[in-house]
Amino acid sequence: MSGEQQILAALRPLATDPAARGLLDDAALLDGLVLSHDTIAEGVHYLPDDPPDSVGWKLAAVNLSDLAAKGAAPAGALLSLTLRGDSEWEERFLRGFHAACESYGLPLLGGDTIALPDGAPRVLGLTVLGRAGARTPSRGGGRPGDRLWVAGVLGDSAAGLDCLRRDTKAEGPLVDVYRRPIPQLAAGRALAGVANAMMDVSDGLLLDAARLADASGCGADIALDTLPLSTSFVAERGAGLDARLFAATGGDDYALLCALPAGVDPNATLCLPEGTRMAAVGSLTDGMGIHLTDDGEPVPLPERLGHEHFA
Amino acid sequence: MSGEQQILAALRPLATDPAARGLLDDAALLDGLVLSHDTIAEGVHYLPDDPPDSVGWKLAAVNLSDLAAKGAAPAGALLSLTLRGDSEWEERFLRGFHAACESYGLPLLGGDTIALPDGAPRVLGLTVLGRAGARTPSRGGGRPGDRLWVAGVLGDSAAGLDCLRRDTKAEGPLVDVYRRPIPQLAAGRALAGVANAMMDVSDGLLLDAARLADASGCGADIALDTLPLSTSFVAERGAGLDARLFAATGGDDYALLCALPAGVDPNATLCLPEGTRMAAVGSLTDGMGIHLTDDGEPVPLPERLGHEHFA
Repeated sequence: MSGEQQILAALRPLATDPAARGLLDDAALLDGLVLSHDTIAEGVHYLPDDPPDSVGWKLAAVNLSDLAAKGAAPAGALLSLTLRGDSEWEERFLRGFHAACESYGLPLLGGDTIALPDGAPRVLGLTVLGRAGARTPSRGGGRPGDRLWVAGVLGDSAAGLDCLRRDTKAEGPLVDVYRRPIPQLAAGRALAGVANAMMDVSDGLLLDAARLADASGCGADIALDTLPLSTSFVAERGAGLDARLFAATGGDDYALLCALPAGVDPNATLCLPEGTRMAAVGSLTDGMGIHLTDDGEPVPLPERLGHEHFA
Repeated sequence: MSGEQQILAALRPLATDPAARGLLDDAALLDGLVLSHDTIAEGVHYLPDDPPDSVGWKLAAVNLSDLAAKGAAPAGALLSLTLRGDSEWEERFLRGFHAACESYGLPLLGGDTIALPDGAPRVLGLTVLGRAGARTPSRGGGRPGDRLWVAGVLGDSAAGLDCLRRDTKAEGPLVDVYRRPIPQLAAGRALAGVANAMMDVSDGLLLDAARLADASGCGADIALDTLPLSTSFVAERGAGLDARLFAATGGDDYALLCALPAGVDPNATLCLPEGTRMAAVGSLTDGMGIHLTDDGEPVPLPERLGHEHFA
């Protein structure tokens, strides 16, 4: 068992309430409210050099992405802020956080602000609450034969981070996606009405698809030649198999991954926001585990399916 | 402005939703749910030597105390756990956390678990949700003439911490109170029905009473000779003015402080849990600021009213 699995195993006996969904989902559902919490730490989830306003934006956006994946509308947030006495950093962080809250209609309702010992890395947490729609798809409702669809593109954020690792002053659209991800709230609301299962792609498509398939008691086939890539991504890294495997395992995408009944074409039947890119990337099977193809030919699984938090 | 006030001033423009209560309260109120979040850090809110199970208990208890102060019944929690690869610490932490959740009927609904860089102090967060009762008193509803009542005793926890600072192996009832505070959920539910204002005493009676009075647009008179002290406290520190000022400023009490209309005697009219100690410690005035007396004689305010998080 990985460290994360071990901790989840220790936590599960505490989470017997049906609202907890067995801790198998990204979000809980209580009294019509979808609840999610994400914590990020300096040096782990963001670079110490990242502009503070982009860290603030990202904290709000990644939490809003969890609401998007459940088809919920933002209702409120509680912010946990650690201070280190650098008030310029904190003001800029709050500016970016505020911008994201304003963009997506997320009211700040409360939270906590604490001091940290000197030199400690910042740890920033956000709890978001959303009003559930008519349906709140879990990770675990997929069925063999469902097609797997991705809303959004893959790999931009990981490619942007890679640019920054090579040059801390790097700029451009890929760096922008890494720093300012867009939560797909409207697409999530539309897809929640028809999806058997849904989650956001935060740790890499292959890892997250494996999680969705596993929670649904299915296997998954993924066709790497169908991955949605942006023109910026292709310009930077090409579209060969290596680039597509990079996009499928990079993480930090905040695209939505959903399992739709085989007959449903979301482009034809749903009212999606202008410009939403929907790609059918594979399907759920009655097997186990995840299997890759490229133009119909089998491709061995890479050693690393995505970002494991306790690798 | 203190650091905390500065950050609150920067946060307030984000918190225009009525559910946020202007960030002036310990909790928000959304769709009939009372929401609160508290974060604690190693070396700031607990000692690195504290037994991990007591840290887990305390994280749950201090958050439950915020629900108690709003008269809400526990409905669920989201836990933010940072890991440092010491799984024995984490297992013991979760054991204590679990014990508190079980004792007070708090289901774990979700949260997040992240790795921290080596050597970083742990930061642990908890969001709690409670179902609101018929009334949810804020800090700011007090009126001149209201009597200030304390449910519980003051100073035990600060005296316990002081024992531990002098001897890390110290034991006894005061250390127990410091390590395992008791949230006064049932008393809070009963008092919420009649209180004009209520909050929990987490940072010291004088500081928290000043906050309640300020939020209510009142001043406050506190009679130091009326403070509720335990026999263990008196045995350890005596009952002189110094000891009472220590008890009034120590913090970490998780007693409840409420403003009741002058005619209401909670001991006579409310169905409080067996053994709940209620003390009338002063009153709200139409003045400003906080004024102390001891046996009717004025006492100058101490320099430090309680635990300021960003002193």
